[in-house]
Amino acid sequence: MGSCPVKSARGTKTCVSLKNTVQGASTMAPWYAPSLRSRLAPLLLFLQMGFIFIYGFCTEVESNVSVDGITFRNFYPNFQDVNVIVFLGFGFLSTFLVRYGFSGCGFNVLVSVMATQLAIILNGIESWYYRGKISINLRSLVVAEMCTVSALISIGAVLGKTNPVHLVFIALLEVSGFVLNKWFLQTLLKVQPLNSIMQLHIFGAFFGLMLTWMLYRKGSELPFEKEKSDHKSGLFSMLGTVFLWMFWPSFNSVLVDDAPSGRKLGVVCSTYLALAVSAVTAAAVSVLSSPKGKLNLNHMQSCILAGGVAIGVSMSVVHQPWEAISIGFIAAIVSTIGYRYLKIHMLLAFQCHDTCAMLSTHGLPGLLGWLAHLVLQLKDCDDHTMGIRFAVVHICTLFITITLSLSMGIITGCLLKLNFWRPPQDKKCFDDQAFWEFPHLAVQK
Amino acid sequence: MGSCPVKSARGTKTCVSLKNTVQGASTMAPWYAPSLRSRLAPLLLFLQMGFIFIYGFCTEVESNVSVDGITFRNFYPNFQDVNVIVFLGFGFLSTFLVRYGFSGCGFNVLVSVMATQLAIILNGIESWYYRGKISINLRSLVVAEMCTVSALISIGAVLGKTNPVHLVFIALLEVSGFVLNKWFLQTLLKVQPLNSIMQLHIFGAFFGLMLTWMLYRKGSELPFEKEKSDHKSGLFSMLGTVFLWMFWPSFNSVLVDDAPSGRKLGVVCSTYLALAVSAVTAAAVSVLSSPKGKLNLNHMQSCILAGGVAIGVSMSVVHQPWEAISIGFIAAIVSTIGYRYLKIHMLLAFQCHDTCAMLSTHGLPGLLGWLAHLVLQLKDCDDHTMGIRFAVVHICTLFITITLSLSMGIITGCLLKLNFWRPPQDKKCFDDQAFWEFPHLAVQK
Amino acid sequence: MGSCPVKSARGTKTCVSLKNTVQGASTMAPWYAPSLRSRLAPLLLFLQMGFIFIYGFCTEVESNVSVDGITFRNFYPNFQDVNVIVFLGFGFLSTFLVRYGFSGCGFNVLVSVMATQLAIILNGIESWYYRGKISINLRSLVVAEMCTVSALISIGAVLGKTNPVHLVFIALLEVSGFVLNKWFLQTLLKVQPLNSIMQLHIFGAFFGLMLTWMLYRKGSELPFEKEKSDHKSGLFSMLGTVFLWMFWPSFNSVLVDDAPSGRKLGVVCSTYLALAVSAVTAAAVSVLSSPKGKLNLNHMQSCILAGGVAIGVSMSVVHQPWEAISIGFIAAIVSTIGYRYLKIHMLLAFQCHDTCAMLSTHGLPGLLGWLAHLVLQLKDCDDHTMGIRFAVVHICTLFITITLSLSMGIITGCLLKLNFWRPPQDKKCFDDQAFWEFPHLAVQK
Repeated sequence: MGSCPVKSARGTKTCVSLKNTVQGASTMAPWYAPSLRSRLAPLLLFLQMGFIFIYGFCTEVESNVSVDGITFRNFYPNFQDVNVIVFLGFGFLSTFLVRYGFSGCGFNVLVSVMATQLAIILNGIESWYYRGKISINLRSLVVAEMCTVSALISIGAVLGKTNPVHLVFIALLEVSGFVLNKWFLQTLLKVQPLNSIMQLHIFGAFFGLMLTWMLYRKGSELPFEKEKSDHKSGLFSMLGTVFLWMFWPSFNSVLVDDAPSGRKLGVVCSTYLALAVSAVTAAAVSVLSSPKGKLNLNHMQSCILAGGVAIGVSMSVVHQPWEAISIGFIAAIVSTIGYRYLKIHMLLAFQCHDTCAMLSTHGLPGLLGWLAHLVLQLKDCDDHTMGIRFAVVHICTLFITITLSLSMGIITGCLLKLNFWRPPQDKKCFDDQAFWEFPHLAVQK
Repeated sequence: MGSCPVKSARGTKTCVSLKNTVQGASTMAPWYAPSLRSRLAPLLLFLQMGFIFIYGFCTEVESNVSVDGITFRNFYPNFQDVNVIVFLGFGFLSTFLVRYGFSGCGFNVLVSVMATQLAIILNGIESWYYRGKISINLRSLVVAEMCTVSALISIGAVLGKTNPVHLVFIALLEVSGFVLNKWFLQTLLKVQPLNSIMQLHIFGAFFGLMLTWMLYRKGSELPFEKEKSDHKSGLFSMLGTVFLWMFWPSFNSVLVDDAPSGRKLGVVCSTYLALAVSAVTAAAVSVLSSPKGKLNLNHMQSCILAGGVAIGVSMSVVHQPWEAISIGFIAAIVSTIGYRYLKIHMLLAFQCHDTCAMLSTHGLPGLLGWLAHLVLQLKDCDDHTMGIRFAVVHICTLFITITLSLSMGIITGCLLKLNFWRPPQDKKCFDDQAFWEFPHLAVQK
Repeated sequence: MGSCPVKSARGTKTCVSLKNTVQGASTMAPWYAPSLRSRLAPLLLFLQMGFIFIYGFCTEVESNVSVDGITFRNFYPNFQDVNVIVFLGFGFLSTFLVRYGFSGCGFNVLVSVMATQLAIILNGIESWYYRGKISINLRSLVVAEMCTVSALISIGAVLGKTNPVHLVFIALLEVSGFVLNKWFLQTLLKVQPLNSIMQLHIFGAFFGLMLTWMLYRKGSELPFEKEKSDHKSGLFSMLGTVFLWMFWPSFNSVLVDDAPSGRKLGVVCSTYLALAVSAVTAAAVSVLSSPKGKLNLNHMQSCILAGGVAIGVSMSVVHQPWEAISIGFIAAIVSTIGYRYLKIHMLLAFQCHDTCAMLSTHGLPGLLGWLAHLVLQLKDCDDHTMGIRFAVVHICTLFITITLSLSMGIITGCLLKLNFWRPPQDKKCFDDQAFWEFPHLAVQK
């Protein structure tokens, strides 16, 4: 009986389909019920116990008030902005599916806190090795949440086609891969920490793409039965977008070191301008590419962020407003056209069902930002040798990031293909019913 | 076919009306489709190219860390609060129409970024004239967003009865008019910059009023078919209100100069108290004036902000808590009674259909704040001559603001009356269908 | 006719029930209408006039920029975070009832501003007694809002079963009781101000419990007809939860004095870790205790905050990450199991209908935090005598808090049982219809 109130709440139900659903639910319920109880709960408790153990022995809260010249009070509002990005922005962005809102938003919290706890530990391994303790401060929390964002991007590509056990595994493996990638870039190529973190868009998007390619099911080229949105879920999703849009300047600038040169203001203004231009351009391109000449809410939701993503990847060389604006302009065009044409092409030609179009939203703008970084750096570079050296390092950065992200994605995908995890049936994809109780739902009188 | 899923999603549809709608949509679609594609997209791209050109040659990011003694770190959270007001507060406040949520929220982003980009340029013309460059910093962004707010207030009055091309034009003309007004007040009357910016409520409300008067259509005294709200859209709108309410103290205090006297704390506390009193009073008056003795959500949404508006206009002379509370008290009474009785009167007697009741929400409290400013200043004034001089200047301020706002409103209205812009038909007013694609909408099974 | 559009908007209506409702509404309307008009409006206006009078004679805005070494600019973002907790977090948390969203969110604003205005006065009585003036600054606003939170917790227990007149009375009496309790603890037992404020969770939960016990109606062991949620109202509620979750570190740390020792960073990190662990543990326990092995959204909404509550009560002695994590872990287990089993038990055995399960969400984690405080303090205590003295004081603190909260709850309940207040009928509980006009609601065409 659990499933009929939901449907009837929308009032679009005939008696026949009501009966069918009830029967469907009752024959299906025993198949799903054990999945979460016997797998999710022990997994979460086991991991959480492990984390408690590690935190008990290896961590301490930074006792210094001032870390790297940044006082707590100055940094705290920025930390909250990143929190808003992770928990509210990404959480509500993924409520656009009409029957998958609880999952989109609830699993986002669950996955984010697991990934953040792991990332704090992984980022602190070096410090633990040398000093015996991982010190926790606002900066380490922020870095950990940025690693989490890369996991959330990957999860966007498989949203709705996985169960929460999958999601936790994906998040943990993705974060491990991303931290490994960061470490490679920093030790092998001497990439700046900030630049290596900003690869998160590229890493996350390609990891997710591989994952969804591995998890492809036969018949998925047809639209899923429940992969739909409605007016209200579109508005919830818009809420997430607006939060992401507003706090993206914080996200890009949070780790920028302000002390010597007022660089932080530059990053904030660049990001702001790029986002503004992205919004306008995404709307224009969306209308232009629409057969009926209308706007598309999905484009407005995803592609207005493209400028922020591209600036994030290239920010260390963007100094002039026109550079920021141009990058935002091109990023929005690439992203919107990618969303309009590439998403369906990826599905039909490469069998990648990318739920939130993460390739267009984070992958392509990230690559564009990488390119802009290269071009602008070479433009500013007087010395030829230096320029070539930089170009080689920069290309290697991308190469390592993509290679690692693709291979980690394939490995994770292989692990998740095991039937042991009990993936949701096609019919139950994009459906909260499979994972959530609805005890007090409004029923038809 | 695009239109039937939306309707059926609400499940309140018989076969007959479904057929009608489909036919209506198919005969209507070709009429609307070109409107956005052949007008909105080229307009946006053309304007955006122009902005990129201007930004490329005339702007630079402020390289000084400390502008006017305000360091970046201290100012950044305030900047974000203003961002929240503009993009989230006003955006979600205008989602209260049940079928116009995407437009209310999406066009708000579009219009805001266009208006802000223009306002940055217009506000910087003087600096460009003397120094050859417009410098961009957080303060100039905040001032530009405040100009945008005046445009958003105007747009509130014509919400739902215009297409996005209209909205972009209105926003650009309104912002130009407002910057002109600001410049008049500052050069002719030597009004303080902050006071001249705070005329935004009066300017925006009267501009919008003229606009909606010019755009009046025959038959609009009857309620529009789709001008309705429901439970959920009311809650989205409430979300916008709560954000506006919470961050209004930031909005009022953001440009106040704190350095000498702790004035900023005074403004924050005054605004907070006035808003608190407004909320209580608006609820009481709403109940008192209701025939059934019930609360009205629209009053709660609009009129609890009245105290903040009134304090905003008069803040430079409000020093005591009781002054702030009294202003908030009277503002809420005026605003709520205006909403209850004036809105329908304006429609029937003057043919002004004011969708969001901007006259009651921003116009009347703004005027009240102006009056409070006058009274409090005269009260504090010992010297008679000074008092009269101030009164003359203050009355001229209002006179110039209203004259300019009315005349700009009429000019804008005349331009928009041209059929060239293809305004939405009456039947398509307050309807997302005309502007948005609904490809993946939940359909009836 | 006011009531039929609402129902039909959901489209689940037959002609018969429509007619019934209309009749029901018309026979009921005269019974309800006077309740709000003749009681709520005069009450609000009378109280507000009184507050204006008191504020006019007894308050002043702090003219010092720096209060207790905290400059305005540093404190302002924290103040905003507490604002978000009170108005947005608690407001939207209580929108989970499908027909009670306007009330949940609208009355929250109303009640909060009344309670805050009263709390400012009550907290300032001492200062008024000695200096003749109550000075208003950000710190006093924050303390007042924390008193308000204790009232909001109480109101959570009776949500939906009361009218707004009740709610205002409850809030005023609860805040008075809480301030009295705070004063008792500080003067009799020399408890630190911060620790005495943090009893708000315990005080609020037990006050609300007594209240709902006193207001129990015969027949309430059956579920109320309209006490239901749906997908969208669940998401609104989730929005409130996410805001509470994100800004809880601010809430706990806002009054911590940072100057000497960087203690604020410690509190923020502890709260953050405890909240993270709570989220994971609440999900695990929710799945484990569910008969079908599914997650429960209510648990996710309430119990992921348990860690924050427990840390709030015990924060002055939590110094190590593992302590914070363990407290969060246990708090989430206690809270989730309490929600699952205790809520229904309280209803059937003790006739306490606790709408938002405030006992499990704030009461039990608060008690756990109290216990953790005791244990950790004793552990750190070398001196036996000091330990025993602390234990006695600590037990007295709890004893006074609970006694006062229970007795004030009973007194308030007795006052509210008078028929004079016209409580809503059982049929009209959890229904916006009784209190809100729906003039422009979407109607069936």
